[in-house]
Amino acid sequence: MPELRKDPVVDRWVIIAPERADRPQAWLRRGGEDGDDAAGCPFCPGNEAMTPPELYALRDGPAWSVRVVPNRYPALRTEIQLSREGRGSFDRMSGTGAHEVIIETPQHGVSLGQLPAKQVSAVLSAWQVRMRDLARDERLRCALLFKNEGLAAGATLSHAHSQLMALPLVPAELTEEMSAARDHFGRKERCIYCDVIAQELLEKERVIHEGERFVSLAPFASRSPFETLILPRAHQSGFEQADALELAACAEELRTLLRKIEVALERPALTLFLHTAPLREAELPWYHWHLTVKPTVAGVGGFEWGSGCFINPTPPEEAARFLRQTEV
Amino acid sequence: MPELRKDPVVDRWVIIAPERADRPQAWLRRGGEDGDDAAGCPFCPGNEAMTPPELYALRDGPAWSVRVVPNRYPALRTEIQLSREGRGSFDRMSGTGAHEVIIETPQHGVSLGQLPAKQVSAVLSAWQVRMRDLARDERLRCALLFKNEGLAAGATLSHAHSQLMALPLVPAELTEEMSAARDHFGRKERCIYCDVIAQELLEKERVIHEGERFVSLAPFASRSPFETLILPRAHQSGFEQADALELAACAEELRTLLRKIEVALERPALTLFLHTAPLREAELPWYHWHLTVKPTVAGVGGFEWGSGCFINPTPPEEAARFLRQTEV
Repeated sequence: MPELRKDPVVDRWVIIAPERADRPQAWLRRGGEDGDDAAGCPFCPGNEAMTPPELYALRDGPAWSVRVVPNRYPALRTEIQLSREGRGSFDRMSGTGAHEVIIETPQHGVSLGQLPAKQVSAVLSAWQVRMRDLARDERLRCALLFKNEGLAAGATLSHAHSQLMALPLVPAELTEEMSAARDHFGRKERCIYCDVIAQELLEKERVIHEGERFVSLAPFASRSPFETLILPRAHQSGFEQADALELAACAEELRTLLRKIEVALERPALTLFLHTAPLREAELPWYHWHLTVKPTVAGVGGFEWGSGCFINPTPPEEAARFLRQTEV
Repeated sequence: MPELRKDPVVDRWVIIAPERADRPQAWLRRGGEDGDDAAGCPFCPGNEAMTPPELYALRDGPAWSVRVVPNRYPALRTEIQLSREGRGSFDRMSGTGAHEVIIETPQHGVSLGQLPAKQVSAVLSAWQVRMRDLARDERLRCALLFKNEGLAAGATLSHAHSQLMALPLVPAELTEEMSAARDHFGRKERCIYCDVIAQELLEKERVIHEGERFVSLAPFASRSPFETLILPRAHQSGFEQADALELAACAEELRTLLRKIEVALERPALTLFLHTAPLREAELPWYHWHLTVKPTVAGVGGFEWGSGCFINPTPPEEAARFLRQTEV
């Protein structure tokens, strides 16, 4: 059974999930390669029986366009009763949570960025539907939506999919953002993300694309080459609160950014993740949801593990200029 | 010129180092492979002219056994005057610092763990000599010693070497450890690391090897399979303060652990890093220096980047049992 363990010194939780070791290695090797086999792909139409029972699907007639299923090798499980235990310096929590897979398209071998805008919008809508449903489980405090595309990013299946994990705690990255943003608001009565957007739109040099409702940036302190950020221009703390128009605009912005990255960097492996306020939070004046897209380049080495600092050889100004000029 | 940039929201600094992009790709491809060419290796005896001028060497007669040189593609540079600048939400600092390479042996193709105990001890002694020297530069606040071994860990040259970076700030990972450890001491008047060692030696199940002066553990909340930790049994906050006997004992413990990992996991790529108190700190009752050794396994994906949590399929108890039983 999976469990969460807190580092005895720092505020970092780790999921110990022995069952994850059972994932078939064959898939690991095949994932991300162009020649992989649609016939044996559990995410292809006709192979629905290869996945655990469907949690949600968007259908137009009998065929689905987006489908959500539990992860077959979940890092956390809803069936586990929430419990906590401490012994001396060591704290544990049961591996209570959810781990779902969003199959982004019935088409095998097509990336999220290559899908039509309407389909990307349907994917974002499925993310939202699942988050709202998971929010009903009071044990779950936070939802983390992420996506690994390509073998180098850790994707074990090449068929386009994203993943949603719901956790019984607010993880370190989000806690740090929330706490720093709350401090800023406490001092200035302004959202730090709104401040950053305003300054970026003024300085222009790190702006990749300006949509009407969303903006894509190369962050000032990008950790790795071509790290990018999508933010709603209007203040909003929770992705779950976005309305249909906002979702459609976000989908359009994400699609534009992904296409630029695919063209400019020749379809690199990449990861994507969504930072949004914890589940069931009312609208917060200090937090601002955002999507990060990070092409996978060099691995994380001893310096990065040891310091928490990153060395980035590509100034975000250069990355932004290159992506801005890339026609899609 | 490299510069440091602070993330506008969280307390994370990034080194933007455009010159690092100039590193020859040929080396990147060749590094870590067994067949690479000693003749063209800048770390081999006879090729000393291929490196920047030597900073330190341990010699027995004319031949060196350990040699320290500046990194040819430094992420930070001592020649840069320390300056700070803020503009709106964005903070920058000059890329002032040091980036050195410790060539661990004249022998090409031998790993640190394969060297005799006396040679490993000489390497640790060189780390200490360089840290003490860098501590004389008051601009530098912290030294981070690390090592990447094998291509998958990011090593660009296969000849055994470690790296030392000195930073004009205390990086996030160390700040968090120091601050949590200081809090613990404030409440309990005990060092948290001493507490952990005592509990681990009692529970035994995560102990890999018990030396007389040092102990090797699989940490309770290991982030990845076979992550390991070496701690001095006696409280000591700074690696620089270790005496010759302690260095020799640490070298022996590190060599034992590295050999166990090499045998058990068939010489995996790995990273190693040293956490020690900031430069020029007097002995601190709340901090305890330690070495982390992390075999490189799966890459870091969207979940890890987005949450700061890690999913580890190998319980540390299993990793410790396996390494404990591995004969070297």
